[in-house]
Amino acid sequence: MDTALSEPQSSVATAGATAAVRQALAACEHVVLGPLKLDCGVTLDRYRVAYRTWGKLNAEKSNAVLICHALTMDQFVAGMHPVTGKPGWGETLVGPGRPIDPERYFIICANVLGGCMGSTGPLDIDPRTGELYNLSFPVVTIRDMVRAQAALVDHLGIETLFCVTGGSMGGMLVLQWAALYPERVFSAVPIATAARHSAQNIAFHEVGRQAIMADPDWHGGNYAAHGTRPARGLAVARMAAHITYLSETALQRKFGRQLQNRDALGFGFDADFQVESYLHHQGRSFVERFDANAYLYITRAMDYFDLAEAYGGTLATAFRGTPTRFCLISFTSDWLFPTAESRDIVRALNAVAANVSFVEIESDKGHDAFLLDEPEMFRTLSGFLRGAGNARGLRP
Amino acid sequence: MDTALSEPQSSVATAGATAAVRQALAACEHVVLGPLKLDCGVTLDRYRVAYRTWGKLNAEKSNAVLICHALTMDQFVAGMHPVTGKPGWGETLVGPGRPIDPERYFIICANVLGGCMGSTGPLDIDPRTGELYNLSFPVVTIRDMVRAQAALVDHLGIETLFCVTGGSMGGMLVLQWAALYPERVFSAVPIATAARHSAQNIAFHEVGRQAIMADPDWHGGNYAAHGTRPARGLAVARMAAHITYLSETALQRKFGRQLQNRDALGFGFDADFQVESYLHHQGRSFVERFDANAYLYITRAMDYFDLAEAYGGTLATAFRGTPTRFCLISFTSDWLFPTAESRDIVRALNAVAANVSFVEIESDKGHDAFLLDEPEMFRTLSGFLRGAGNARGLRP
Repeated sequence: MDTALSEPQSSVATAGATAAVRQALAACEHVVLGPLKLDCGVTLDRYRVAYRTWGKLNAEKSNAVLICHALTMDQFVAGMHPVTGKPGWGETLVGPGRPIDPERYFIICANVLGGCMGSTGPLDIDPRTGELYNLSFPVVTIRDMVRAQAALVDHLGIETLFCVTGGSMGGMLVLQWAALYPERVFSAVPIATAARHSAQNIAFHEVGRQAIMADPDWHGGNYAAHGTRPARGLAVARMAAHITYLSETALQRKFGRQLQNRDALGFGFDADFQVESYLHHQGRSFVERFDANAYLYITRAMDYFDLAEAYGGTLATAFRGTPTRFCLISFTSDWLFPTAESRDIVRALNAVAANVSFVEIESDKGHDAFLLDEPEMFRTLSGFLRGAGNARGLRP
Repeated sequence: MDTALSEPQSSVATAGATAAVRQALAACEHVVLGPLKLDCGVTLDRYRVAYRTWGKLNAEKSNAVLICHALTMDQFVAGMHPVTGKPGWGETLVGPGRPIDPERYFIICANVLGGCMGSTGPLDIDPRTGELYNLSFPVVTIRDMVRAQAALVDHLGIETLFCVTGGSMGGMLVLQWAALYPERVFSAVPIATAARHSAQNIAFHEVGRQAIMADPDWHGGNYAAHGTRPARGLAVARMAAHITYLSETALQRKFGRQLQNRDALGFGFDADFQVESYLHHQGRSFVERFDANAYLYITRAMDYFDLAEAYGGTLATAFRGTPTRFCLISFTSDWLFPTAESRDIVRALNAVAANVSFVEIESDKGHDAFLLDEPEMFRTLSGFLRGAGNARGLRP
């Protein structure tokens, strides 16, 4: 870790986090890197990437797996999350005997640039002004996030990653990795994702952003200086988004029209239905762990993602000559990143004769399936990694 | 019109409407009725129903068509809307040569109880206190709305309606009419609707309500007294809801990833994409014409709708022995009220050997299709009304 550079300063604390959170994040692995020229034209002289690793890099440096996290996730895939005190978001994915096993792989997961779990983002102090960036932080793209991750991978002394994988936004990063650094990605597993964000998904994100920015406690993004947080707006944003992560079937099965702690309708505007209580809980708990400005930046990065754009509008061109082995996974009830989006990617890969397999998994759990204990997803991933590992010469 | 009773007072003006709006609404047809015992147990001694009619009731009083409006619509189906100055929401549905032709039918459309276009709702003054109801207005149900409409139909001297029709929430009213007053409904055309509001739809409504109630300008519903309006919260609610009215295909076709008035991404949080500008416009224009508290009440009524509940949980029982002829219409790309919901109603009607036809119309326009100029919907409706008219002995 390069500690010679003066470190970019994070202000998680001033944005509402407790001293304990600040300490917890400061104690986590991170590295200071730079410079990085962003797609918007701005150059970050220095930036911090917070990350976690599990397992050991082998002598050949051929067993590194990079996990790219989704919109509101972070580097804490496994083990206890230092902020929430809960298990990591990928407890069933990463661990001994799990599909991504630290006994076999050197596993890396990094908080994305623009995030709020230790990597440089709007919560940081702008070194030019000594003030918080807030909305003066440059808008970053998925490609910027990937470039920052590549610098981390350089720092770790790894030339070629055995596998890059991730779901949802994480899948966008996987695709961008394969397009930008084909020789550095031996295999890629983009899950429940798309090569470009759809109009409907941009629309849902914009509703969330508008909810945040409509909250007077947002103060044009300068809430830290006002000692406030746009908690209500962020909770509404989360509630709206959360619906899109589930399927109608899952909601009906889990909640239906069941009432919450009552025998009859309340004839009021409290939460009568369990599904309402559940949403309230989702909103409240999200506000505890996530920063509103970071939510604006990361949703924007997803909206801006259109992989084909830099390749003359033809997605296949992004993968021309790719040596990477791909395995795509989608879920039947995912209406946020429906199977058709994965199929478009498979078609583009086929058009350039790439090595690609594709599995659509039957699930009624909606987009969220990619975060859940889905045996068929794990079987698919494990099987693919075994085959790719043989091809890579990894010891079984 | 019963002008002997002192009229319940509306306060559309204090809730943000202009004097011109107040005058316009005051000049519209309305009637004062009562008492009405509501499902919540409260009795409204007097209530006002604002309505419009077109055409003439025939001597046999057998040609009356009642149109039930959707969540944010009103009695102004055709002609100029006195508040917005725009054509009515059903210009292509109602009019000479249209499927519901005033030369043939006596057409009635009434603002629902709890609404904000002249019928009694949270904008009214509570006669017991002389203050605005706001959130002390009783929570009304779809059944309450139908009972109020039935009193209007009584007032108009009509025993049996030739047809009751409506889409979305309007379709819920149609179903409730047929269940509550089978002998008064000769034919019924519920469009793009459901016999109960789904968990997903309740969830979306709750997001909208939370957005309104999170707006500090809402003031616990007492915004009129504070001279404010929860415009930002209501706009966010509308934006979220609006996405659910469209299909992903329609959004992709209309907007895709097209940029708004710019050649390149703006790397900021203004509306880069056309779909964002469109949503902003939807939010802004809705706030001009609709009241936030009324939105709370009407969404709640929809959430509470579960027709089978009063019939031991068996939908078919609601229609046992029904003499009504039904025609159900759904749209293939409607994911808010998907075809499966209409099919459940058809199955229930079949189970009691009711006279029912059902047409699922191919459309990529989503739920909104029921409000649009959909030739196949109009052909279906016209054909059904012609057949029912013959059975009813209406002159061609």
